[in-house]
Amino acid sequence: MDINGVEIEDNFAEAFDIKVSRILITAATKKLALVAATEATGYGTSVIGCPAEAGIDCYVPPQETPDGRPGYVIMICNMNKDKLDHELLERVGMCILTAATTAVFDWLDEPDEKLKTGQKLKFFGDGYEQTIDVEGRKVHSIPLMSGDFCVEAELGIKAGVAGGNFFILAENQPAGLLAADAAVDAIEAVPGAITPFPGGIVASGSKVGSNKYKFLGASTNEKMCVTLKDEVEGCQIPEDVNGVYEIVIDGVDEDAVKAAMKAGIEAAVKVSGIIQISAGNFGGNLGKYQLQLHDVC
Amino acid sequence: MDINGVEIEDNFAEAFDIKVSRILITAATKKLALVAATEATGYGTSVIGCPAEAGIDCYVPPQETPDGRPGYVIMICNMNKDKLDHELLERVGMCILTAATTAVFDWLDEPDEKLKTGQKLKFFGDGYEQTIDVEGRKVHSIPLMSGDFCVEAELGIKAGVAGGNFFILAENQPAGLLAADAAVDAIEAVPGAITPFPGGIVASGSKVGSNKYKFLGASTNEKMCVTLKDEVEGCQIPEDVNGVYEIVIDGVDEDAVKAAMKAGIEAAVKVSGIIQISAGNFGGNLGKYQLQLHDVC
Amino acid sequence: MDINGVEIEDNFAEAFDIKVSRILITAATKKLALVAATEATGYGTSVIGCPAEAGIDCYVPPQETPDGRPGYVIMICNMNKDKLDHELLERVGMCILTAATTAVFDWLDEPDEKLKTGQKLKFFGDGYEQTIDVEGRKVHSIPLMSGDFCVEAELGIKAGVAGGNFFILAENQPAGLLAADAAVDAIEAVPGAITPFPGGIVASGSKVGSNKYKFLGASTNEKMCVTLKDEVEGCQIPEDVNGVYEIVIDGVDEDAVKAAMKAGIEAAVKVSGIIQISAGNFGGNLGKYQLQLHDVC
Amino acid sequence: MDINGVEIEDNFAEAFDIKVSRILITAATKKLALVAATEATGYGTSVIGCPAEAGIDCYVPPQETPDGRPGYVIMICNMNKDKLDHELLERVGMCILTAATTAVFDWLDEPDEKLKTGQKLKFFGDGYEQTIDVEGRKVHSIPLMSGDFCVEAELGIKAGVAGGNFFILAENQPAGLLAADAAVDAIEAVPGAITPFPGGIVASGSKVGSNKYKFLGASTNEKMCVTLKDEVEGCQIPEDVNGVYEIVIDGVDEDAVKAAMKAGIEAAVKVSGIIQISAGNFGGNLGKYQLQLHDVC
Repeated sequence: MDINGVEIEDNFAEAFDIKVSRILITAATKKLALVAATEATGYGTSVIGCPAEAGIDCYVPPQETPDGRPGYVIMICNMNKDKLDHELLERVGMCILTAATTAVFDWLDEPDEKLKTGQKLKFFGDGYEQTIDVEGRKVHSIPLMSGDFCVEAELGIKAGVAGGNFFILAENQPAGLLAADAAVDAIEAVPGAITPFPGGIVASGSKVGSNKYKFLGASTNEKMCVTLKDEVEGCQIPEDVNGVYEIVIDGVDEDAVKAAMKAGIEAAVKVSGIIQISAGNFGGNLGKYQLQLHDVC
Repeated sequence: MDINGVEIEDNFAEAFDIKVSRILITAATKKLALVAATEATGYGTSVIGCPAEAGIDCYVPPQETPDGRPGYVIMICNMNKDKLDHELLERVGMCILTAATTAVFDWLDEPDEKLKTGQKLKFFGDGYEQTIDVEGRKVHSIPLMSGDFCVEAELGIKAGVAGGNFFILAENQPAGLLAADAAVDAIEAVPGAITPFPGGIVASGSKVGSNKYKFLGASTNEKMCVTLKDEVEGCQIPEDVNGVYEIVIDGVDEDAVKAAMKAGIEAAVKVSGIIQISAGNFGGNLGKYQLQLHDVC
Repeated sequence: MDINGVEIEDNFAEAFDIKVSRILITAATKKLALVAATEATGYGTSVIGCPAEAGIDCYVPPQETPDGRPGYVIMICNMNKDKLDHELLERVGMCILTAATTAVFDWLDEPDEKLKTGQKLKFFGDGYEQTIDVEGRKVHSIPLMSGDFCVEAELGIKAGVAGGNFFILAENQPAGLLAADAAVDAIEAVPGAITPFPGGIVASGSKVGSNKYKFLGASTNEKMCVTLKDEVEGCQIPEDVNGVYEIVIDGVDEDAVKAAMKAGIEAAVKVSGIIQISAGNFGGNLGKYQLQLHDVC
Repeated sequence: MDINGVEIEDNFAEAFDIKVSRILITAATKKLALVAATEATGYGTSVIGCPAEAGIDCYVPPQETPDGRPGYVIMICNMNKDKLDHELLERVGMCILTAATTAVFDWLDEPDEKLKTGQKLKFFGDGYEQTIDVEGRKVHSIPLMSGDFCVEAELGIKAGVAGGNFFILAENQPAGLLAADAAVDAIEAVPGAITPFPGGIVASGSKVGSNKYKFLGASTNEKMCVTLKDEVEGCQIPEDVNGVYEIVIDGVDEDAVKAAMKAGIEAAVKVSGIIQISAGNFGGNLGKYQLQLHDVC
């Protein structure tokens, strides 16, 4: 299968269950909302080593938010519900409540359940907090030195999908990188999907475990490493490929992840110097979802 | 004491011991280095609820870096050495190694000791890693799908200072915010100091413990809350103040923190609508350092 | 009339006829499209002294553009059709054709007529240019050193409206500025309207002519200058106002300008420290349109 | 000659005399200064079709500016002194005076002469303007609606150098583009030099005149066009080159341009996929300066 002259390998992305929250951060200006969203989603590339997977989903103009101010939607995810509860509480409490002029609203459709994040944060008000109604939402208003911080009492979570992905195999590193950038721009327009790695891009696709170091849970995917082409047996990259980047996607459901994969791949193949699109999986034994590239595109 | 017509209160910032690392992240472009630096320093406002305090210190042009590429210096801090070791390993491993085209170098002068962060990360190479020399530094080169990631074998840490701070008391919230922005811009030019909160600014100065909720470790500083002026006994803000922001500073040593406080205060008082500069302390009982505003300025 | 406790003066913005073009700039990435859009709309605040009035209207995701790449819509305006023709040719030719990976499409609904901008630019190809079809559009593809540049053969223009405006009167400069920022963010979401001044904000509202210097066409609006309150007779600003910013809007038609004024005003009054919204006019003698604040809101 | 394995062709950049101004724009924050600098340097790629060549030179922290606020240094250039006088007046008057919180200072060392830009702009104050001293500089303070605008009375100009340049020949367009980005980042650190094209990069190197269309002053450099390799006789690009970008540099003197070329080339060759560095000239007949690549590097 080809798109725009680029081969789409007959392969699949192996994806996993994860619990997902999705919240809207509003602020006095677009820039102030972005500052808070960026802090709250940092250190959130993969639960392999980060306390959560997190990213910015999309921008919402003031005309469409509960408090009439511009906002960014972020997603915070973890396999474990208690850990997600903790991360949501701390990331909202330490990175958004502390940020200038912000407010937080639940922005998840069809939640499986609700966490009492706002309910817990209200105690920071030390008795001066108030419960108010914002467009039918129950919101706690907490007095701060700079003014009041509003946070919705309960924030929804649901079963989502983590680890949707595709590989961009390119003539060289810069071509792979530009295509990855284009893919991230396209995925930004898909609601309910984030690309949690730095700038949305993964430079270091990995395999489970390690051949040499038995104490390791994950190590470099040497068969896809461009500088090891002449060294590694069973190398899986074509001779003319010298740069490989991966896009990893978390979504509110399988459809969101598939739509993001499709948008990203279609954007990536428009960039010159792209040779092949592939995907990462573990033989289908680890993850619940097998997202076939030929089905997605 | 007055600067530019703004009263500098006779007060002090109470600051604490903290262990500090300081590393340089280089990349193919300034923007790519910033992407990695931003991810690695996110979720890092205060160890009250974040796993580290972290921030971007300054930009270094390609002419002055070990590998001739543009870079950003970041600082990652924690009171506890083992926790700092863990944070450094995970933030470099999950947020910089995974980012496009990056490399990491130690950038701390006069370290107390060195952590083997690079030494540990090299195992990700699963035997294909190499040790190279970059301008006299021992560096591990780890093959990735996109190319090779270089990280210095050992990264220095030292005893630094956390919690340097000052308050900006303003006629209204926007004036406090613009002055805070100006202060953060000025502190950016002070080497060895970061402002770890979102955008460098704290909207929610707190007190230790809580009057009403005994289970809380920290709660809002109600005597400095602008919307509680008529409600709280012992309110500490002048009648005409309606917006208060705090700048919190971590530094490699006391001098860096003092220089940052001075730079920030001098910048803040240039903004119109600023009424007073104060500082946050706990009566001098908790922190090792008492940074007097009248001494600093 | 009050919105959010802020007085909306019973006043009107006086607006003018202007000829408007509206084009879409696409590129390999969102950032590259923004670079070209920014260069092409620079030096374009007011035709009083700039060769055009120009600004970025909105972002269009790759899913909605003719070539499937991300893009920004810009508007370029001039009262005089020949001057607009010249500006469109030079700004596209010097600032977009020269920019990396860009393409240009007509993005104006219901044009009065079409200018042959692309038709003229194709000669740059020196005989190697080709005419192609992109989603039903006639496009010229011009070979460049970096690749090919595509530009639609004809670009539409129409009679639009310039000089829609409102004033934000604030307790101090920072409050006016934050409210102006919020207004610009809100107007961004109104299609067919731009705020051509730097960052969308005017610091220097003017009057026609000058009282003292007869050779001047325009001079400061001294009756609205915050630092002249005690000096100028007939001062028009309330005693407690110490910062006044103006938002100026150009639009494809009167409805777009009105929608932008409404969106901007509603955003501005949400910021604390705002005292009054007013508007700028010349007694109704100069401009064709009188946009009443009480009608718009 | 090779750097980092990339051939530096034995060729020269042909450069020209141009008159140069260099000014510092300060503002309340770094971002506000950047907004004004961006507007004032827009529509300024080449005097072939733009009214000036203009760009941002560097950032200056508040600690080093006359008014203690952060600032950006910009350069505005034109071959013709009267045109430069006009551009300086209009770009300062329409794009900086109108921008929020700005001030303008002369920032040119060893000027040949001074233009009375500030002296002329002061009339905008309609008699309310004042002359003040800022760190030994004669400055006019002009009352605006938002506050006062300060501009130094006289701004220096001097004979500088335009059209310094080099070509980046790459395996593909993305590699050329990433190398160009890296070059622009490196040149940013060279004082007195700007890269006036969009994002600092030229996608469309040209030749003087046209072979086919005699009415044209400039047309595409078909012998360097990557999509015409099989079509054009005398093609000057190696078979394996599929993307060529040019960096154009204006500087305050020949040394600044040479330093910028050196910095840019050294940065470009570090990017993977770069095959050759060349330069653009017109046989040495048009420009006063012949900047040899082998001499510069």
